[in-house]
Amino acid sequence: MSEPSEITKTSETQQASSPDLDVGHVDALCAAIQSGDGKAIRNLLADEHPAELADRFEQLSSDDRKALVELTPDVISPLLLAELEDEVVEDVLPLLGPEQISKAMEELDSDDAIQIFEELPKDRRAEVLADMSEQDRKEIEDGFAFDEETAGRLMQREFVAAPEFWTVQQTIEHMRSQSALDDDDLPDKFFDIYVIDAHFHPLGYVPLSTLMRSGPGLVLSDIMDGNLTVIEPELDQEDVAYLFEKFDLISAPVVDTHGRLSGMITVDDIVEVIQDEHTEDMLALAGVSEAGLVDTVGSTVMARAPWLFVNLLTAIAASIVISMFQDEIEKLVALAVLMPIVASMGGNTGTQALTVAIRALATRDLTPANTNRAIRREAFAAIVNGVIFAVVLGVITFVWFNNLDLALVIAAALVFNLFCAGLAGILVPLGFKKVGADPAVASTVFVTTVTDVVGFLVFLGLAGVFLL
Amino acid sequence: MSEPSEITKTSETQQASSPDLDVGHVDALCAAIQSGDGKAIRNLLADEHPAELADRFEQLSSDDRKALVELTPDVISPLLLAELEDEVVEDVLPLLGPEQISKAMEELDSDDAIQIFEELPKDRRAEVLADMSEQDRKEIEDGFAFDEETAGRLMQREFVAAPEFWTVQQTIEHMRSQSALDDDDLPDKFFDIYVIDAHFHPLGYVPLSTLMRSGPGLVLSDIMDGNLTVIEPELDQEDVAYLFEKFDLISAPVVDTHGRLSGMITVDDIVEVIQDEHTEDMLALAGVSEAGLVDTVGSTVMARAPWLFVNLLTAIAASIVISMFQDEIEKLVALAVLMPIVASMGGNTGTQALTVAIRALATRDLTPANTNRAIRREAFAAIVNGVIFAVVLGVITFVWFNNLDLALVIAAALVFNLFCAGLAGILVPLGFKKVGADPAVASTVFVTTVTDVVGFLVFLGLAGVFLL
Repeated sequence: MSEPSEITKTSETQQASSPDLDVGHVDALCAAIQSGDGKAIRNLLADEHPAELADRFEQLSSDDRKALVELTPDVISPLLLAELEDEVVEDVLPLLGPEQISKAMEELDSDDAIQIFEELPKDRRAEVLADMSEQDRKEIEDGFAFDEETAGRLMQREFVAAPEFWTVQQTIEHMRSQSALDDDDLPDKFFDIYVIDAHFHPLGYVPLSTLMRSGPGLVLSDIMDGNLTVIEPELDQEDVAYLFEKFDLISAPVVDTHGRLSGMITVDDIVEVIQDEHTEDMLALAGVSEAGLVDTVGSTVMARAPWLFVNLLTAIAASIVISMFQDEIEKLVALAVLMPIVASMGGNTGTQALTVAIRALATRDLTPANTNRAIRREAFAAIVNGVIFAVVLGVITFVWFNNLDLALVIAAALVFNLFCAGLAGILVPLGFKKVGADPAVASTVFVTTVTDVVGFLVFLGLAGVFLL
Repeated sequence: MSEPSEITKTSETQQASSPDLDVGHVDALCAAIQSGDGKAIRNLLADEHPAELADRFEQLSSDDRKALVELTPDVISPLLLAELEDEVVEDVLPLLGPEQISKAMEELDSDDAIQIFEELPKDRRAEVLADMSEQDRKEIEDGFAFDEETAGRLMQREFVAAPEFWTVQQTIEHMRSQSALDDDDLPDKFFDIYVIDAHFHPLGYVPLSTLMRSGPGLVLSDIMDGNLTVIEPELDQEDVAYLFEKFDLISAPVVDTHGRLSGMITVDDIVEVIQDEHTEDMLALAGVSEAGLVDTVGSTVMARAPWLFVNLLTAIAASIVISMFQDEIEKLVALAVLMPIVASMGGNTGTQALTVAIRALATRDLTPANTNRAIRREAFAAIVNGVIFAVVLGVITFVWFNNLDLALVIAAALVFNLFCAGLAGILVPLGFKKVGADPAVASTVFVTTVTDVVGFLVFLGLAGVFLL
């Protein structure tokens, strides 16, 4: 287990702009790939941490990546595959033979193996499974039986459990003897020992640091923490992440339908889940339908066009509202000049309220217990901001167009639109949440439709009644 | 260390809507607070996990929280304080005496103690420190000497280090004897043992799970992993989080200016950092200047008004552009009807590109090595989407207004505005990043100003030249 000593130092200056930035290295790699120099590629990638390798590899263009794999397929080690982002794995797997894939999956912990398996095209899955050992194949098939983005998919089958009556010394001896076996079942890394009864039901856990400082003769049931968070395999990964965060968990046991210990989830996977869920939320709010820094123009267009199309429809809806007031605009063209301000301020207010609500839902700060208070707060805050900016905009309008009635109309329209915007900003995501939809996905377009339509309708409508 | 067995089960049904949702419980708590019934409050909060308690407490309104603390100050245990969000701690501390605060800080690991200390008003800090033991006070003062949001603030002073020549058995014996002391220096939880030389420089680490499975006679230097990620205390917490994610770290040592081991950062704190940075990014993108689900109308208004004001200025800039074309609009009022569509599609395209760029910068997927490729991709994708939607919008305009020239003008304006939007969406955040500013904070308003101004200018300008 001893490895060459290589301490990664993080000096502040080096980090300030971007840690591990090494453009020259990536450029050299590109050059080696383009000249087809396999030896140079291997030299450039030798002795790197798999995470570092994965970063370099992800910086390459899709074409360079393919060329690299074709030149030097052996650099795609199991650990590198486990470190790569899903989109990149999907890109690389078609270039690897079934034996290389199944060997990698056998070597990795089962959670990493399943992640790779997920990216395999359906028609290749059988041939890869056929190359694996009985036990490893069964683990993959069992894990794959659970839905995507659930605890069952996240968990690994390898964990450490011990009966409640074992002593500290017995437990340590057990791990030492397990480890001496050729084909040990211990996870690569683990942090807690799950204490079980005779039926394999978890009773509590002993953090390794507790085991370490306890006398050798103590019995596990005496040192275990009974406040155990047990995860059911159907639980959504977002909910799993919430439990990890809330209880500062490092690992948690997963049980089967009979309550028997069947797997373990560790915090490093949860950190990834948190990042993925966050990317999903941000892109959804901005109307981008696929995650990740997609690599090609084609996939970028495909990821964005659907929501642009929806936006076109809502923009046309707003235009139809405006077209109902063509006479008014013809008579008083200042209306056309000013109307985007009312809509824009509403859009901004709606987005602010919406983003706070989406974030508060994600962190579980917004719950049924304080929903009413939050709605009241948004409504009042929108009215207060509405009045403040109505005064400002009213004065500006009066000075600009020297028309008091116009100033009063735009001020009134602004207050009303900001009020609607604040309410829509919190009610729309709460409504989507209530019917079981992801509030981040469709809320933005709903809220901005409300603020555009209401903004134009109220401003032009009031103008029609009071000015002309 | 034995605790009452209480296994938290997470059934899918219970989780589906919102885990640990217990409105009735919060309502009962509110009732007890309002009737001033301290005994009922204590009963309702008895035997709860501090994280659970913190959640309940955060659901209360600011007034109820204050009333609760005044009625039953003893329920604010050190562990509860450590679990509460910063804004809530800030709310609670003024209600607690200096002894209660300093006792809590002494009991907690130094990283948690510093987090509480940060929320104390400046004029109360001295009195709280005065009540603490010499050693604990020094730890707080040392930690506080580092800037906010750096590794130095995050780290705890408690860690486990061992000389490279110790055997596994010696190491375990050492921890057992330390733990037997009344005032042990061991952290509450730890996951790795840092291996040091005679000068206290870290050489590598041994995960506890490795220590567990190694024979008692093995020497640490033989089982340690030399690929150690050492953190310098000035490093920004976002960069620390990146290193944890990249290398799947559970803990990492922090060194002083002489390279000597001086602290430890653990992954549970990093999970919090990641969440906080996400909230910051999302709120910044939406133009909300303070984090968290703020509790009162006043603070909500204050958090939103500044960016609404900036938005008002940019909206007025767009209006000024429109006002330059009042004659054209008077002659052809269809221009007023259609112009918001061009601006809106540009805004949407810009936001899409911007969000992808912000996210890619945060996850370090967008680096100097692939910046040019990303810019080209955004520009091309924007042109492709521009052409697609120009055709759609052109046809719609022709059918609607039966005016081919108008259809051609809006199509051309849309392509040009989407191209500018895509470019602005990636260049603006890259520019802010380059000059050392946070790209999430000011990018949105810049990008939408570009798309509004360009949208109106090009559409109305082309109309003026070709239609009238």
